Amino acid sequence: MNNSEIKILIDKINAYDRIILFRHVRPDPDALGSQLGFKYALQKYFPNKAFYAVGSMTDNLSFIGEMDEVEDETFKGALAIVLDTANAPRIDDERYQLCSEMIKIDHHPPVDQYGILNIVNTDSSSTSEMIYEILLNIGFNTIEINTAIARCLYIGIVGDTGRFLFNNTSNRTMEIAADLLNYDINHTEMINQMSERDLKSIRFQGYVLQNFTFENGVGFIFISNEDLIKNEISSQEASLFVNTMADVKGIKAWAFAVQEEKEIRVRLRSKGTVINELASKYNGGGHPLASGASVYSLEELQTLKHELIQLVN
Amino acid sequence: MNNSEIKILIDKINAYDRIILFRHVRPDPDALGSQLGFKYALQKYFPNKAFYAVGSMTDNLSFIGEMDEVEDETFKGALAIVLDTANAPRIDDERYQLCSEMIKIDHHPPVDQYGILNIVNTDSSSTSEMIYEILLNIGFNTIEINTAIARCLYIGIVGDTGRFLFNNTSNRTMEIAADLLNYDINHTEMINQMSERDLKSIRFQGYVLQNFTFENGVGFIFISNEDLIKNEISSQEASLFVNTMADVKGIKAWAFAVQEEKEIRVRLRSKGTVINELASKYNGGGHPLASGASVYSLEELQTLKHELIQLVN
Repeated sequence: MNNSEIKILIDKINAYDRIILFRHVRPDPDALGSQLGFKYALQKYFPNKAFYAVGSMTDNLSFIGEMDEVEDETFKGALAIVLDTANAPRIDDERYQLCSEMIKIDHHPPVDQYGILNIVNTDSSSTSEMIYEILLNIGFNTIEINTAIARCLYIGIVGDTGRFLFNNTSNRTMEIAADLLNYDINHTEMINQMSERDLKSIRFQGYVLQNFTFENGVGFIFISNEDLIKNEISSQEASLFVNTMADVKGIKAWAFAVQEEKEIRVRLRSKGTVINELASKYNGGGHPLASGASVYSLEELQTLKHELIQLVN
Repeated sequence: MNNSEIKILIDKINAYDRIILFRHVRPDPDALGSQLGFKYALQKYFPNKAFYAVGSMTDNLSFIGEMDEVEDETFKGALAIVLDTANAPRIDDERYQLCSEMIKIDHHPPVDQYGILNIVNTDSSSTSEMIYEILLNIGFNTIEINTAIARCLYIGIVGDTGRFLFNNTSNRTMEIAADLLNYDINHTEMINQMSERDLKSIRFQGYVLQNFTFENGVGFIFISNEDLIKNEISSQEASLFVNTMADVKGIKAWAFAVQEEKEIRVRLRSKGTVINELASKYNGGGHPLASGASVYSLEELQTLKHELIQLVN
């Protein structure tokens, strides 16, 4: 971001009485943390304006804060600020279309540039990290950031860096986290709340660890309809366990296959070998080390698995 | 630590030609990181002296660095610097007794004050964090710290803070981590190496997740001799999985019981209720939220479990 972008952002906020903050559907900690952290900060900075945070909440993240209930009328003529959302169809609450103007703030590679202003920094670990930098830039100093703001931004950074694990964690990310820990936030408790899972999910994790196969550096599991029923879990919930086998010593890549309604959805992950070309071959695609594919029979799934083994060896 | 302690430390190093660095048995990342990080730094600072790092290595941590093979003769008349070790009996390599003088550097509450100088800071997240502060204090600046030193100290801090999770992670801890990330260390790869586990351990983790019981907020599992054999795991290896059930929603405390030769060793953990008095009642003790006990029959184990349930409810 640069100073002229920040200036436009402030000018736009100044021009409206109502500002509605959006983020993407199925929110993660960074979406919620950047949305609520920015809302709390703007409320302090512009005490005479009305700020709203909208979208549906995910149960296990409700500790981060609350969404506002907003009537259709309120959207009309308001400014929309959309956080952490690469493309307009993923904005939670379609009523963004009623707003007068939109501003995007995001760290994902842009899909749509849907805003009249698009503040995008793909080098930033998270949108929460960007919000911290924006607050410094618009004249907040560390005294003006309060605990409520700090905890939102901290949880967002923790979420998108895998708790300072992924290589998007820069020296600057850690400096910001260090500063946020100056506030009275119980980071241990927050992070524990984030990693809490219900008993059913914990049991399913155990099921995956007991049942995946491991052959020539490749991990593999297929979760059939029957397995889903037996574990009382949906295919969508099951897919969250794709990284369960990531810590096996010597693992080079893995395929996590789940029966869906009309297809077998195969999530492919790799620790080094590029696998998105293989994914493309099987009706999919994605990032070099994290892709998705679809197959339509157990035979095709076996072929995909063997190609993956050949690819990484 | 204070300036006079650092002065004595430097004076003592100046007074010796050979300095041997020790740490505790069964080393963890902080023991190894502080030992090797300090060794590398001292070698830069005192190029005309000989520094050795001794002790037995743990297989899965060998990526941190190598220990030196040292003859008995070398210990005689040398200065011993012992890192991260609260009491003398836990020092790895008993030949510390051959050294002329000992200095302790540690962040644990002291058990023995075995050194002629004991630099102890229980507010520090880790001994590696202390070493960073000592290096700054003795005149290293961030230009003089190099990648080899930085990666050792980083991995030590990550180890003892549970990767910035535990509440020993202070604002200062994060500032130091931020500075260490200025060096060209592949922190993602290092941390992944730390969390790597062999297939047998991964399967055992699955076994625990599938088989623990959960009753009134209390998790419980008993690993019998038969279970150990079936899972091809030792009682010591099994005990490393004590925190496997920590993320279950609603868990208040748990007991992880493993059959040992003459007793059943019960590791007790709590998220809030103090449990070390219960541990004392059953031939054990420890910290308020992390204790150990010993029982001698399955009946006694059941009684302990029910007392734990009563205690936390």
